[in-house]
Amino acid sequence: MELKELVKNHVLGNPIRLGVMLYLLPRGRVLFKEVQKILDVTPGNLDSHLRTLEKAGYVKLTKVFADRPRTAIEITNKGAEETGKYLRLLRELLNGV
Amino acid sequence: MELKELVKNHVLGNPIRLGVMLYLLPRGRVLFKEVQKILDVTPGNLDSHLRTLEKAGYVKLTKVFADRPRTAIEITNKGAEETGKYLRLLRELLNGV
Repeated sequence: MELKELVKNHVLGNPIRLGVMLYLLPRGRVLFKEVQKILDVTPGNLDSHLRTLEKAGYVKLTKVFADRPRTAIEITNKGAEETGKYLRLLRELLNGV
Repeated sequence: MELKELVKNHVLGNPIRLGVMLYLLPRGRVLFKEVQKILDVTPGNLDSHLRTLEKAGYVKLTKVFADRPRTAIEITNKGAEETGKYLRLLRELLNGV
């Protein structure tokens, strides 16, 4: 039963983390600042969710130099795979109602 | 920007509450026991999320008599409307990736 699966994914079952991955998936790498603006969340809040995504192996946080050092968020193979799976699950659920 | 909207819905931005509403939407009224089984969550966990849905005006909890008194979950007009809106938002986001 798919509804069970929806409840089981603790990483993507949070709208901020899902939002990060939805934005990141087609882009591969984005800046922290950019995501913060797009999602309209505080830096502290975004940072805490990024740590969860990093711990789960979905993203890598790196430093890039654009004018000054900035934090970039990079998607990992695992992150792309797991997000793809979750999106397929969501699509199935949406088609069911 | 739609990603912002995803983060803003605090009621449906939880997979258990979204799961309840997805199951309830096409059915109108379901039994507590049934939903608990479908979502594979503990009674206490489901109860706490139902209180949040009730407070938000998305569902009404009632008693029905099937053998013995049981808790039923009924969708409200507001619940159906808000869930419909959220599903449209999810569909849009999924079409975007």
